[in-house]
Amino acid sequence: MSKLKHKLKIISLGGVDEIGKNMTAIEYGNDIIVIDCGSMFPNEDLYGIDLVIPDVTYLEKNIDKLRAFIITHGHEDHIGAIPYVFQKINAPIYCTRLTQALIQNKLKEYNMPNKIKMNCIQPKDTLNIGCFSIEFIKTNHSIAGAVALAIHTPVGTVIHTGDFKVDYTPVDGDVIDLATFSRLGEEGVLLLMSDSTNAEREGFTMSESKVGECFEKYFDEGSDKRIIIATFASNVHRIQQIVDCAEKYKRKICFLGRSMENVSKIAAELGELIVDPKSIITPEKAENMPKENVVIITTGSQGEPMSGLSRLATGDHSRLKLTKGDMVIISASPIPGNEKMVYRVINNLYRLGVVVIYEALETVHVSGHACKEELKLILSLTKPKYFMPVHGEYRHLMQHALLAEKVGVKSNNIFMPELGHVLEISKKEAKHNGNVPSGVVMVDGLGIGDVGNVVLRDRRVLSQDGLIVVCITLSSSDGSLLTEPDIISRGFIYVKENEELIHDLKQIVQELIEDIRADKLRDWSYIKNEIRHQLKDYLYSKTKRTPMILPMIIEI
Amino acid sequence: MSKLKHKLKIISLGGVDEIGKNMTAIEYGNDIIVIDCGSMFPNEDLYGIDLVIPDVTYLEKNIDKLRAFIITHGHEDHIGAIPYVFQKINAPIYCTRLTQALIQNKLKEYNMPNKIKMNCIQPKDTLNIGCFSIEFIKTNHSIAGAVALAIHTPVGTVIHTGDFKVDYTPVDGDVIDLATFSRLGEEGVLLLMSDSTNAEREGFTMSESKVGECFEKYFDEGSDKRIIIATFASNVHRIQQIVDCAEKYKRKICFLGRSMENVSKIAAELGELIVDPKSIITPEKAENMPKENVVIITTGSQGEPMSGLSRLATGDHSRLKLTKGDMVIISASPIPGNEKMVYRVINNLYRLGVVVIYEALETVHVSGHACKEELKLILSLTKPKYFMPVHGEYRHLMQHALLAEKVGVKSNNIFMPELGHVLEISKKEAKHNGNVPSGVVMVDGLGIGDVGNVVLRDRRVLSQDGLIVVCITLSSSDGSLLTEPDIISRGFIYVKENEELIHDLKQIVQELIEDIRADKLRDWSYIKNEIRHQLKDYLYSKTKRTPMILPMIIEI
Repeated sequence: MSKLKHKLKIISLGGVDEIGKNMTAIEYGNDIIVIDCGSMFPNEDLYGIDLVIPDVTYLEKNIDKLRAFIITHGHEDHIGAIPYVFQKINAPIYCTRLTQALIQNKLKEYNMPNKIKMNCIQPKDTLNIGCFSIEFIKTNHSIAGAVALAIHTPVGTVIHTGDFKVDYTPVDGDVIDLATFSRLGEEGVLLLMSDSTNAEREGFTMSESKVGECFEKYFDEGSDKRIIIATFASNVHRIQQIVDCAEKYKRKICFLGRSMENVSKIAAELGELIVDPKSIITPEKAENMPKENVVIITTGSQGEPMSGLSRLATGDHSRLKLTKGDMVIISASPIPGNEKMVYRVINNLYRLGVVVIYEALETVHVSGHACKEELKLILSLTKPKYFMPVHGEYRHLMQHALLAEKVGVKSNNIFMPELGHVLEISKKEAKHNGNVPSGVVMVDGLGIGDVGNVVLRDRRVLSQDGLIVVCITLSSSDGSLLTEPDIISRGFIYVKENEELIHDLKQIVQELIEDIRADKLRDWSYIKNEIRHQLKDYLYSKTKRTPMILPMIIEI
Repeated sequence: MSKLKHKLKIISLGGVDEIGKNMTAIEYGNDIIVIDCGSMFPNEDLYGIDLVIPDVTYLEKNIDKLRAFIITHGHEDHIGAIPYVFQKINAPIYCTRLTQALIQNKLKEYNMPNKIKMNCIQPKDTLNIGCFSIEFIKTNHSIAGAVALAIHTPVGTVIHTGDFKVDYTPVDGDVIDLATFSRLGEEGVLLLMSDSTNAEREGFTMSESKVGECFEKYFDEGSDKRIIIATFASNVHRIQQIVDCAEKYKRKICFLGRSMENVSKIAAELGELIVDPKSIITPEKAENMPKENVVIITTGSQGEPMSGLSRLATGDHSRLKLTKGDMVIISASPIPGNEKMVYRVINNLYRLGVVVIYEALETVHVSGHACKEELKLILSLTKPKYFMPVHGEYRHLMQHALLAEKVGVKSNNIFMPELGHVLEISKKEAKHNGNVPSGVVMVDGLGIGDVGNVVLRDRRVLSQDGLIVVCITLSSSDGSLLTEPDIISRGFIYVKENEELIHDLKQIVQELIEDIRADKLRDWSYIKNEIRHQLKDYLYSKTKRTPMILPMIIEI
């Protein structure tokens, strides 16, 4: 065994709630490749933030080593940060055909000049980048074109599953390439990094084709109804099954919602979605056809307030109105945090007299992620020396780690990822070794990273009890008040209905200024602090609320 | 059949997401009785609101008819509005022993003088109030002392189930009184109002005693560990099962969290919870005993940020620290909207090295509400002429209505409740007949109903992009600026890092004032509007954000 100059480094650069997701760097010597470049949705405590992306300071600092981005599939949490990250760093992107089309569509939306070198790869391809040789392995997932990676490094082979499930009856006919996982296992796998999203769930995830059977049932049952199906625009196989049903039951198809129209067009152009262009009709046409001749495929399966389905449910859609005689199928599961929004849409649909079919009642959705038995299958085939559960909250990673132990991975050889942690692997050993700069960058409007904790804290305070602005004008000669203090309030109380309270506040400020004047103090920050304190105490005693208090002093 | 002077009115006064909950009025002639007086948690769009309670304007207007409040059980969504509603109206309260103790505890917390006449009733009691005769019927639920009501009215018998499930092996040994439901069915039931919470779920809800079996398993498995169990303080039977395990496995018991300490004390005093006072220890004592000798029963099963369990999970609890060697059982299901908070707690616990058992992995919780088969049982026993599904979101009510139809209730005889709707029933017919004033009243600090839509809208805007205050001082003689405009920002950007932007804003304001002065305009509201518009456009073009802009003008 030749002595190795360097150690292999596995660095998690993405993920907040879900760890080891969004972005992972693999480094050896002078070469870094990055897996995925995804964005996260902001948590509810990130007031006003549009998107959260990985901090790529480490990649900027090591830009000379950066060889490529490999994107496993086209979901937002794997491609969504590209328009932001590529403003700072640039490297060729390698991915499958549909993934590439979705990235290009995104760059177009952001008006980004096409400076990124995009390279299309296919499963079974092998790619040599720097000291790495990368095999692409076909997997099943809730989007077409998903791949796992086998990265052959000087230290050994690293397998990264990406997001995956095992589907023996997939819609495109291509089962996950278990033979390659098996061969790699025989050859020897140094490290397996595997999707943990469903590691809490027993058994197997059902096949995508189960959903197709369910659709058939409702096309039968609802043969006199207009059928509206909400699902993720990127789930091309789901959409294919709806299209197939539409064809069988002789219905025209209407795609509704910007991303649904975009993605179906892109997928059809690539041949990933087989649909007769003559079957596709506009919403206006759909609205005026007999109900039993139409199926509408729409966005909004997560109850997003501005989406197609939400607007249909509240009767606010400009081009379509739902009524009795419509059947809505919500072909998705609420993502944690979206439950209440989805339920609101269902309730609103029922109020319109629409028949609603959703996950609590029927198998109108299956997950795109592997359950315990599938995870054990991949662990058993690849027989990795080291194991790192990725893609999941800590609780999922823990369950996946317990599974790996049961399947035979030594507990000392299991490493939990953490944002910024470096896992260092030599032929002899693997260990956590330090951290690199990492974290999340918040995107708010055009600002990338300019909103910090102070701004967020202020937004939180403002959202709870609003604010009061107190403006006072002082004479520069003797520090006396030149006018009555001016007070305005927003998000706190109605000033008109609380004249007495406002009067009291002015009184307090006036007395305070008089006292300070008597003491001959002229320190503005002291005056502001006193105003804040005294008004805060008074308001809390009267209302048990603590609005933000903003004193402004003008000296003339 | 004697001719009836009046019609029976059923009026839903509570509920936003969940309809027909919190408060229902039953009216005939000169008599009104009210079932329950509960509060709701505010939705996420009610920024800063603490609690939502029913609007009781209708009861205030008809105070002469108001005879009594009947409280079905002691959960917050059935008693939580009492401290607020009883500031406006007063009537005797009738309820079972534990419910009464919980209400009294609540009134004490609110420092409310005990002006309310409280009457303790028991299952099988019959109560005559005005023209009504009310039977109390024992049910099973996730709190002790839950009852259903049979209200005999001049028009016929109305059954209101309250919240219920059918538990053949309940912890207190008392099965729901099916014989009474059955007798009432034989005698004839005019209207059934029944709990719809679980109407989407097939089969039967599991018995509470299943959870006890699961606890035993983990007391066995974790025999060398300290065991911490989080559950609802009001679930006295759940707590009883933990206490029984503690006794069997010779562990001392520590109650943690204000409501857990309160409710366990109250329940023990009433004999609803059987626990040896000598077994109860303080957190300090629990912290210093061998781990295998202690069980801690704590609040925080919904991941509430200030609760016992959340603070334990982040290591912030002042009296106890969790470490390896602890086992935490979360004996509850996340209420919709709380999912992310609960998962956060689980993730934090795992990071401490604690073993965590929760619903996704084990039967550590069962619901307190009836599933489809139980609902059909009650429908079949009572054979109501009219049916109104209550207690649930619209989707649940719809499923329950479909069940009732299957079991034989005529579809025209099924009425969906809506906030404020009046269902009018005579011997001949039942129909919706108009609305009464109704709605929700928001509680914010000491204010009851003083926060309205404008205040909420302002809080929402402030929470998204913060605000900018622009203060200008004008000369009263010639309208010129006396000082440079003063600008402060909160929740928008850091002023210090954006000096150029602030400079531009000042420039815009100065030019605007000059223009206006040249035009000899002195209309303040015009000036303020112009400032708002021009700054808004400028800021949006520069940042794609829309902070609230607050201009203040001082004339000297």
